[in-house]
Amino acid sequence: MSKVLTSRSEDYNQWYQDVVTKADLADHSAVRGCMVIKPNGYAIWEKMQQALDKMFKDTGHSNAYFPLFIPKSFLSKEAKHVDGFAQECAIVTHHRLKTIGDTPETRQVVVDETAKLEEELIVRPTSETIIWNTYRDWIKSHRDLPLLINQWANVVRWEMRTRLFLRTTEFLWQEGHTAHATSQEAMEETVKMLNVYADFAENFMAIPVLKGVKTPNERFAGAEETFCIEALMQDGKALQAGTSHFLGQNFAKAFEVKYATTENKMEYVWATSWGVSTRLMVALIMSHSDDHGLVIPPKLAPTQVIIVPIFKTDEERAAIGEAAELLMRELRAKNISVKFDKRDKERPGYKFAEHELRGIPVRLGIGPKDLANKSVEMARRDTLTKEVVPMEGLAEHIAKTLDLIQSDMYARALERREAMTHTVNTWAEFEAALDKGGLIYAHWDGTPETETAIKEKTKATIRCIPLDNPQENGVCILSGKPSVQRVVFARAY
Amino acid sequence: MSKVLTSRSEDYNQWYQDVVTKADLADHSAVRGCMVIKPNGYAIWEKMQQALDKMFKDTGHSNAYFPLFIPKSFLSKEAKHVDGFAQECAIVTHHRLKTIGDTPETRQVVVDETAKLEEELIVRPTSETIIWNTYRDWIKSHRDLPLLINQWANVVRWEMRTRLFLRTTEFLWQEGHTAHATSQEAMEETVKMLNVYADFAENFMAIPVLKGVKTPNERFAGAEETFCIEALMQDGKALQAGTSHFLGQNFAKAFEVKYATTENKMEYVWATSWGVSTRLMVALIMSHSDDHGLVIPPKLAPTQVIIVPIFKTDEERAAIGEAAELLMRELRAKNISVKFDKRDKERPGYKFAEHELRGIPVRLGIGPKDLANKSVEMARRDTLTKEVVPMEGLAEHIAKTLDLIQSDMYARALERREAMTHTVNTWAEFEAALDKGGLIYAHWDGTPETETAIKEKTKATIRCIPLDNPQENGVCILSGKPSVQRVVFARAY
Repeated sequence: MSKVLTSRSEDYNQWYQDVVTKADLADHSAVRGCMVIKPNGYAIWEKMQQALDKMFKDTGHSNAYFPLFIPKSFLSKEAKHVDGFAQECAIVTHHRLKTIGDTPETRQVVVDETAKLEEELIVRPTSETIIWNTYRDWIKSHRDLPLLINQWANVVRWEMRTRLFLRTTEFLWQEGHTAHATSQEAMEETVKMLNVYADFAENFMAIPVLKGVKTPNERFAGAEETFCIEALMQDGKALQAGTSHFLGQNFAKAFEVKYATTENKMEYVWATSWGVSTRLMVALIMSHSDDHGLVIPPKLAPTQVIIVPIFKTDEERAAIGEAAELLMRELRAKNISVKFDKRDKERPGYKFAEHELRGIPVRLGIGPKDLANKSVEMARRDTLTKEVVPMEGLAEHIAKTLDLIQSDMYARALERREAMTHTVNTWAEFEAALDKGGLIYAHWDGTPETETAIKEKTKATIRCIPLDNPQENGVCILSGKPSVQRVVFARAY
Repeated sequence: MSKVLTSRSEDYNQWYQDVVTKADLADHSAVRGCMVIKPNGYAIWEKMQQALDKMFKDTGHSNAYFPLFIPKSFLSKEAKHVDGFAQECAIVTHHRLKTIGDTPETRQVVVDETAKLEEELIVRPTSETIIWNTYRDWIKSHRDLPLLINQWANVVRWEMRTRLFLRTTEFLWQEGHTAHATSQEAMEETVKMLNVYADFAENFMAIPVLKGVKTPNERFAGAEETFCIEALMQDGKALQAGTSHFLGQNFAKAFEVKYATTENKMEYVWATSWGVSTRLMVALIMSHSDDHGLVIPPKLAPTQVIIVPIFKTDEERAAIGEAAELLMRELRAKNISVKFDKRDKERPGYKFAEHELRGIPVRLGIGPKDLANKSVEMARRDTLTKEVVPMEGLAEHIAKTLDLIQSDMYARALERREAMTHTVNTWAEFEAALDKGGLIYAHWDGTPETETAIKEKTKATIRCIPLDNPQENGVCILSGKPSVQRVVFARAY
């Protein structure tokens, strides 16, 4: 297998690209900047969707669907918002094609200039404006609040330099948009959804995350406060894995959304929005995968167990098939997803390598000797270790192993992050820590100017100011001015 | 309640619009032709998606995701295909906005003309072209076949006159796109998916459907053969509820998709595509709903049972709440979705009407007298009948009632369809039958000219030639020429 992928030490970026394409997760499409999410990749995204969707519903949210198109005038209503997205908008200007030319040779399909739109439509880069324009009709009184809506959708942000799952012109995501009677309620919702994301990252993706607040420089365009979860990848770069925004009354004011209070006074509504996207696939891959390919945490693995038969004769094949059928019934009764790789044309070695590449958490090999010994060979994808396990009680053992893989993966990711977390006091220490990679806790004077200067010198950004950050006096690593707390710096994706 | 909705007899179209908007299923958006699917409507669509998705996976299909945008040149590669869609394309021509004007007053957001695309992008009206362009890379050998892929997506077909769920510029759907080694396999897949749709319509939506083949006039642009399921609405108009296309080698040839056979010869691949959309919501509403509002078959009802407490004192409320909690646990153990309507501000009568309008299949009213008698009042939404049911064994009784509602709804829809199905032999009989509405079996000479003439005279179209249609000699109702079979005519949505 070592030949299939570029190794991480050799070229980390190429390794990532190799895992994505060779494990058949996604590929570039013929449409510039857009990707195709292949069945293997989409199946993992579906598992993520299911888990998140349940968490959203358990916290009282409903799904809905809003238009793909946003009139240009809507996008322009919140000044900071349009400034944030103007550079990357796909713009629909016409609504008809026509064919010219009378012969097959001269025939040509062109835009029909008589079908020009009066107002251009923007393919949504995010939906605050179209949704808040709708909420004006939905919200009349305090009885209509809180309004807790989520949307699963595709969005488009024009990208010049794209990378699969990380930065593509079109991507899939969910966007929550909630409306509240008070500032406090909206802030509580913002933090609640941040916690949902952190819970999902840690308990499903097996990725420890830092919860924090963005600096004003890094805020969502139109937000009063942006909360985020930040994860650390194997190469020491940080990845923003989800954001939750407190929007204040900005969109309510831009779209005139008011509600009648219990005292029958008209007040502007308070808003939040929060989202995670197919970017989570990057976090998943870069947190756990290795030089053999993808490693998927069991809770997000579309197939958790793969059974590979090893046989020479038809008789052996039949006997192994029978044992596998029995085992699959037991596993499915425990809600474990399992597949039997009965392809005739491929050899077991080839299958082993393929399932390793695709990250199936547990692989069982069953041959005639195993049948005779009433045992199977079980391989863990995360550790690449093998053990011989008795058939007796096998389903139970596999269930425990899947749990163990899930918790071990989290523990290893946490250990790695801790080993790559540095606390520094001087600029020299900061630069040395940046060379090593990882998260760097350092004092900062709190000014956007210093933040920008550090970014320009080092490409490091302030990932977040952690929630419940301890207050301590110090001096800024760059300016030497007084600081009241350390913030978290890193180079980031 | 009678005042809430326009009645069907008064104005059927207005009644439909009322049900959709007043049951909070969907609404028009500020974007011309695009709708907002509201939480109540989206929850039903999600139930449909779950059931269909399971059926697709059980028949061996995987989900994937392809780009929203299609280069104009791709759409043009299959001549009939582009002719079918050219009139209704949303076209992206630019990828950036810019702000002009220095003061808030003169500030204006405009399209940046320097960011014009070299080739225009079409927002997908359907994805055959982008998918078959991708399949060229995925399919090399007979080992890669069959390729069985489905996509859940939004599509855009520019519409001038829109109606919620029926005809909107953007709608949600699934589109299956499969590739096969032989014509026969592709045809088998086409019919298999038609059967999946018919099974879904009948067993989940409680709607009987006719399975048949479209005439060449009514074929999908680019298909060799289009199969469909046709449903009959309460007003006697037909509705196409799903289509499955045998595409032959048309797209394989347009995009040069060939595979190496077992004998290592290069052959073009055979294709199918099949889809159902949020249009199914129209079929659902127009098949079952009544002058009181929506009626949802239990298998697609997001909430199957609603419990309304009837109380005066806090003590009564507490006692009813306790009984409801117990019952809800029992129902949920049976996988029945149930909600307790504990809103304090609304009276029971208001709640009853609201749940009726929204189509919840079973409503339970519990008051102090019911508690004393150890019984509840149970109302069926489909029949509007009420009965007093003992608490003892109530969950079991509700489970049976839900099954009964599901089968009764189907039986009534079938009975209605049969009562509205006519067999005619002459033009006069045909016209009389059209006045009554419904499906009309009549002889047709098999020519597109006669089909078009009938459509122009009466607005009736050939909905389909039923599968396994009996062959019988007759004369065409219009031309008097010989015919070998009856086909099904109707006025349709």
